Amino acid sequence: MMERIGKWRLLVILLFVVSLQGFAQDSNGKNDKNRKAKYIFYFIGDGMGLSQANVAEAYLGALENNNNGIKKLSFSKLPHAGFFTTNATNRFITGSAAAGTALATGYKTSLNTIAMDAAKQKPLKTVAEIARDKNYKVGIVSSVSLNHATPACFYAHQPTRNYFYKIGLDLGKSNFNYFAGGGFRNPEGDGKVDDKNTMANMGMASGGKLKSKETHLYDVVKSHGYQLINTCKKFSHLKNGDDKIIAITPRMARGESLPYGIDQNHENDISLAEFTKKGIELLDNSNGFFMMIEGGKIDWACHANDAATVIHEVLEFDKSVQVALDFYNKHPEETLIIVTADHETGGMGLGFSGKHYESELSLLQHQNISYEMFEARLKQYKKKHKGNYKVEDALAMVKKHFGLGDESKGLALADFEEEQLKEAFEKSLIYEKKMKYNDQFYLLYGSYDPLTVTACHLISQKAGIGWTTFSHTASPIPVRAIGIGGEQFSGFFDNAEMGSKVINILD
Amino acid sequence: MMERIGKWRLLVILLFVVSLQGFAQDSNGKNDKNRKAKYIFYFIGDGMGLSQANVAEAYLGALENNNNGIKKLSFSKLPHAGFFTTNATNRFITGSAAAGTALATGYKTSLNTIAMDAAKQKPLKTVAEIARDKNYKVGIVSSVSLNHATPACFYAHQPTRNYFYKIGLDLGKSNFNYFAGGGFRNPEGDGKVDDKNTMANMGMASGGKLKSKETHLYDVVKSHGYQLINTCKKFSHLKNGDDKIIAITPRMARGESLPYGIDQNHENDISLAEFTKKGIELLDNSNGFFMMIEGGKIDWACHANDAATVIHEVLEFDKSVQVALDFYNKHPEETLIIVTADHETGGMGLGFSGKHYESELSLLQHQNISYEMFEARLKQYKKKHKGNYKVEDALAMVKKHFGLGDESKGLALADFEEEQLKEAFEKSLIYEKKMKYNDQFYLLYGSYDPLTVTACHLISQKAGIGWTTFSHTASPIPVRAIGIGGEQFSGFFDNAEMGSKVINILD
Repeated sequence: MMERIGKWRLLVILLFVVSLQGFAQDSNGKNDKNRKAKYIFYFIGDGMGLSQANVAEAYLGALENNNNGIKKLSFSKLPHAGFFTTNATNRFITGSAAAGTALATGYKTSLNTIAMDAAKQKPLKTVAEIARDKNYKVGIVSSVSLNHATPACFYAHQPTRNYFYKIGLDLGKSNFNYFAGGGFRNPEGDGKVDDKNTMANMGMASGGKLKSKETHLYDVVKSHGYQLINTCKKFSHLKNGDDKIIAITPRMARGESLPYGIDQNHENDISLAEFTKKGIELLDNSNGFFMMIEGGKIDWACHANDAATVIHEVLEFDKSVQVALDFYNKHPEETLIIVTADHETGGMGLGFSGKHYESELSLLQHQNISYEMFEARLKQYKKKHKGNYKVEDALAMVKKHFGLGDESKGLALADFEEEQLKEAFEKSLIYEKKMKYNDQFYLLYGSYDPLTVTACHLISQKAGIGWTTFSHTASPIPVRAIGIGGEQFSGFFDNAEMGSKVINILD
Repeated sequence: MMERIGKWRLLVILLFVVSLQGFAQDSNGKNDKNRKAKYIFYFIGDGMGLSQANVAEAYLGALENNNNGIKKLSFSKLPHAGFFTTNATNRFITGSAAAGTALATGYKTSLNTIAMDAAKQKPLKTVAEIARDKNYKVGIVSSVSLNHATPACFYAHQPTRNYFYKIGLDLGKSNFNYFAGGGFRNPEGDGKVDDKNTMANMGMASGGKLKSKETHLYDVVKSHGYQLINTCKKFSHLKNGDDKIIAITPRMARGESLPYGIDQNHENDISLAEFTKKGIELLDNSNGFFMMIEGGKIDWACHANDAATVIHEVLEFDKSVQVALDFYNKHPEETLIIVTADHETGGMGLGFSGKHYESELSLLQHQNISYEMFEARLKQYKKKHKGNYKVEDALAMVKKHFGLGDESKGLALADFEEEQLKEAFEKSLIYEKKMKYNDQFYLLYGSYDPLTVTACHLISQKAGIGWTTFSHTASPIPVRAIGIGGEQFSGFFDNAEMGSKVINILD
């Protein structure tokens, strides 16, 4: 009889355990709630709204399948998805600092503020700092400068994003294990900082002169025990266990950033994916790690309305996500990958009035350099031919680098389109003279070189892409996730809630 | 001793039941997997992309909170969300027929095809037909004509959406219980149908003349036992149990549709929400019901780039969702609500270059009629003042109905903006003469009255909204859901998968 009771008792305990597990199940039938996110990847595509993410996979689809359908990117395959609103406390259309603060701290703040409250008084603890204090190793990777707004929101606390130098000082004190990507802006001091709002909030006169020629940030970070790496060779030799590493792109582009993907040279550059892969190698340890990886120049290319460069930036970003997914596949029970953005830039639309219902994204393959590189080439031309500019030369450059005007590529220009280029070239000469733009001028060219941005607009339009602005928009932002806690990112919420969700998973 | 065994045994059974329930739980902790979706609401906002949905809640937020933040719409509060791609088999940018077919049948098809395969040969069974065959009552509600593409995809099988009359015949044979909203296009026959692709696919010459003056669709549907209701009074008397009802808007707008929300008169019109509420009343029965509700004119207002009218259409649509949510709250264990769209229209961006980072959505409150109504007023003016048109009159009309040029409303016009209106008015007079437009003309005005669309553009821009096209775009589409099976709509997938998910829940 006692034996029978024993069996029943065993069954009770067994069923009780099963029932508890049942309660802890997520909708995919995996046990999530009792497991810990030991490895967390937080990917942020700066300026990457729904259109930017989709246009890259539509471009790949177009190349394969006669301009129809998409070829899914790695991050598009993540099983959980949702989206969120982005406004700052003091403006509907946010900026990268306020948006980054929400994503990093779970609190909304004011424009330009780096991980402080809206009044720019109190620091807000970031998810990366929480991870560090829980003995996770921490990595911060970005394709733009390491003291730029988005990465800064994870380790610095400053009233304005324009305090690049002070942000750099905070980086030195962060005790994070790995920084990688671009270099440092204002490495010897911020000089004149002209954020009027910030100054007013801090009781300083606008445009106040700050001390310049401070100790170089390279020396500052070294004094905190960091090792600086900026050649491909040294980078390749970094290995697991190497700590307090700052790895910087060997070939620096404008704004102390990685060259655009479309301009990168795989012999001489380190890609965002390579920086990410190295991060995993260095940070992997028994306490786990937290890594934030920013595709920072998606935003910049969107500001310039340069669709081909956007696509290549998104593809570079996605390769980094694939690196994380490869890691996830080895540690599916302990890993969380989140892929999102801070805001949309450019009001990119996957349809253009002049094309009616047609799209020819494959045409973008004929653009072979970024707007930035084209501007540089144009500058060289102007320097070389000073006072003897020919519009034919300009059209030839546009044809060479955008394919525009080349019938054989399907990029013939209508008369009124060629006129637009000619007029833009004339304006481009004025632009050099730093003419004060009026509103109509701005509508056409923003603050870009007129010829360059007109070429970007025309090839976008021929591909079937339109843009509504040179600035950010308030468009809600998608988030995708896989792994521990990933199911929490479905639904429609706010960016502060987005940050809180990540922190809650870590906490 | 036997008593003790009895207790253990009871405990085993109890825990077993608990464990089973645990397994059936979804991520929100509700028991879903064993429950049946007895009441299914399938809301489709035609042309309602992420921006269109968000701009309406941003407008409400702007009115309350100094142009910052959103006031969530009812459908934004649904807990599950995801998004999907939309391309047709033969074009990246889809149309309402191909997109509606995917949503209704779970299969991708070719442009203009109504619930048939891409070759326009085989009919595809729709989710509404499956529901009918499972003894659900079925309702189809739309703000556009009942034989328009989107509603048609749920009951008709035709090679082209332009066979309005044949689609009407299919409606008569559907045996669905409730149709409500707009009227019938081509009620006496389709006459000349000029869908070249369709004709070619069907082996017919393009533009072939079809028989005209068929039996009026009103008589056709009556012969199938349907009762036609088209006054507010008769509509109000409809009650539970009334079957085979076709309820039509008392005041018909262009395209046999409901008047735009911004133009509706609540004394004389029946709103989409009222049609939805009545649907619930009539269809409620012990076997459950399936109802598709389309906000069909969001798309039309987007084609015209008329932001204020879009917002009012989305708000009308959302009121219908709230009606369903009220029902859900009474039957949370048996109801599924899905809110989605077929495609995005207009490339609407929540930022405009001329405004840089600013938004003033509250300015849209000064527009008091739709583009359609404005066009009608302009037509009246032209008729009355034939040959004696004054540009001042046109500017006065624009000021009266859009507020443009009224400084006190914050809608002062720059000189170059007033010039745009004056030039558009000149073109508007040409437009009347059915001039053949060139590409440059189309870029500015699409196929709309130039003055009207210019006014729409200017007020959009001042509010901080830009548009990239007068057509659809390929932008991925959000879906939100609550209730039985709702968690299945998270993630990123394709519109055919979207349709399959709904069918699977029903099956």
